[in-house]
Amino acid sequence: MLSAALTQYRQRVDQHLITQFDQLPDCAPRLLEAMRYGTLLGGKRARPFLVYSVGTLLGAEEATLDPLAAAVECIHAYSLIHDDLPAMDDDDLRRGKPTCHIAFDEATAILAGDALQTLAFEILANCDLPPELEPNRIAMIRVLTRASGYQGMCGGQAIDLASTDSRISLEQLTRLHRLKTGALMRASVEMATLAVAGLAPEHKLALTEYADAIGLAFQVQDDILDITADTEQLGKPQGSDADANKSTFPSLLGLDGACEVAQSLHQDALTSLAKLPYNTDLLTDFARYIIERGQ
Amino acid sequence: MLSAALTQYRQRVDQHLITQFDQLPDCAPRLLEAMRYGTLLGGKRARPFLVYSVGTLLGAEEATLDPLAAAVECIHAYSLIHDDLPAMDDDDLRRGKPTCHIAFDEATAILAGDALQTLAFEILANCDLPPELEPNRIAMIRVLTRASGYQGMCGGQAIDLASTDSRISLEQLTRLHRLKTGALMRASVEMATLAVAGLAPEHKLALTEYADAIGLAFQVQDDILDITADTEQLGKPQGSDADANKSTFPSLLGLDGACEVAQSLHQDALTSLAKLPYNTDLLTDFARYIIERGQ
Repeated sequence: MLSAALTQYRQRVDQHLITQFDQLPDCAPRLLEAMRYGTLLGGKRARPFLVYSVGTLLGAEEATLDPLAAAVECIHAYSLIHDDLPAMDDDDLRRGKPTCHIAFDEATAILAGDALQTLAFEILANCDLPPELEPNRIAMIRVLTRASGYQGMCGGQAIDLASTDSRISLEQLTRLHRLKTGALMRASVEMATLAVAGLAPEHKLALTEYADAIGLAFQVQDDILDITADTEQLGKPQGSDADANKSTFPSLLGLDGACEVAQSLHQDALTSLAKLPYNTDLLTDFARYIIERGQ
Repeated sequence: MLSAALTQYRQRVDQHLITQFDQLPDCAPRLLEAMRYGTLLGGKRARPFLVYSVGTLLGAEEATLDPLAAAVECIHAYSLIHDDLPAMDDDDLRRGKPTCHIAFDEATAILAGDALQTLAFEILANCDLPPELEPNRIAMIRVLTRASGYQGMCGGQAIDLASTDSRISLEQLTRLHRLKTGALMRASVEMATLAVAGLAPEHKLALTEYADAIGLAFQVQDDILDITADTEQLGKPQGSDADANKSTFPSLLGLDGACEVAQSLHQDALTSLAKLPYNTDLLTDFARYIIERGQ
């Protein structure tokens, strides 16, 4: 069930993104091509999956969720393009393919990231919403700006850069990843809760707790995979975190300790789902998938 | 009168920006410092000036205009930080001071630009607005996204990069600058017109025509100054456009031809102002200042 849903939602958000790109005029074709390339390079579409799966769970129409999923993926795609730049992580491969600045050039990659960030907010500002959700439009933009900027993803990436070549505490590492990866996962769920009217606050809380747990678990598992998986599985060189002298959950806790944290976060996610009066089978499967992928 | 107004509005927007930065938590101090540095490096604050001068002309409160001016300046500041990067224009000096990536480092400069873009939309999404202007909030965000992204400033910068080392037509050069510089000047005026309720469409049109004229005149004059002014006046190396093999208005039209275009745009700006039933002295002075600065 999860596999079919992941495929369906991935295709759905990709189609919506393609439609967005197709609507743009041909004024700067190389930039547009780089925006497409960086966004449609592949990937699990974990954030759009959260938007769709949480939104449909709550009774939202998929068509209402399309722009929310596309917007959050634009933010994620822009962050990957910029993170891969030579001045940042200096990665040549992403998902087994040349990164945007390799396929194009650095200047175009910087601009493509910039324009994708703008596009995310442009999509939210202009998308069709059912009239009863119109009051939620600004709240959606607030959620996505907060999760993307200094107090979210950008701040997390800055802490990550500052932490390279220095050993940081588990608390600092956790905080880093809650900002760098977790904030956008949480925002995906929060935006989905805004795609229905009148959700009970305690159900919204349980869903964001779920997002927080799997958002951090996702990163812990990434760190584990960087050690245990091979280059082909990763789509990037194995051991690149260790090579880059980055603190990771395994480097601070050992491999077994990191796996225990991942399992504990998995339990937290399931505990949160148990508070909800909905069929949460898909979200349960997704939490397991986050922990078990690549094994 | 113009000089006092420029100073007053510059101080006002700087104060509002400082307040915004002061409100951010200390989670990524180096990133925050780079955001401050890149934003408060100086400059004429032409875009905030347009927000304040057009807004107050129409009867808006200055306090209502503060966040609009701050948001547009955040976009402008982010674009300068990214444009100065080695992969883009590779400038070490901006307004006579080290550019952001020189004062900090490239990675921090990329992230500071990214976070400033987010902050612009975060400011608009969260600022206090009088209740009667609440319906205009989304329209303000639409205006700023459109002017900043692929169909505006980012697209213009991409065309600029693609045009380096190749001779482009006057039409292409005009289009480039209407996107790269003009779009944000126009957005400043459009956002100001949204800071009042019920503005007559013909007055809005006249004001955006004014913005388009001075937006392009600004760039024509920049190209002229790159030839005629010295490095100290420019705050960057004299002749850097020619060194970079960029098409400019003087390179396509000669210096006299470029000056004629600037004068013609000046006339267009005044013609637009003549359509307005307001005291437009300040905007008249500003149009002349755009053409005469540096002479």
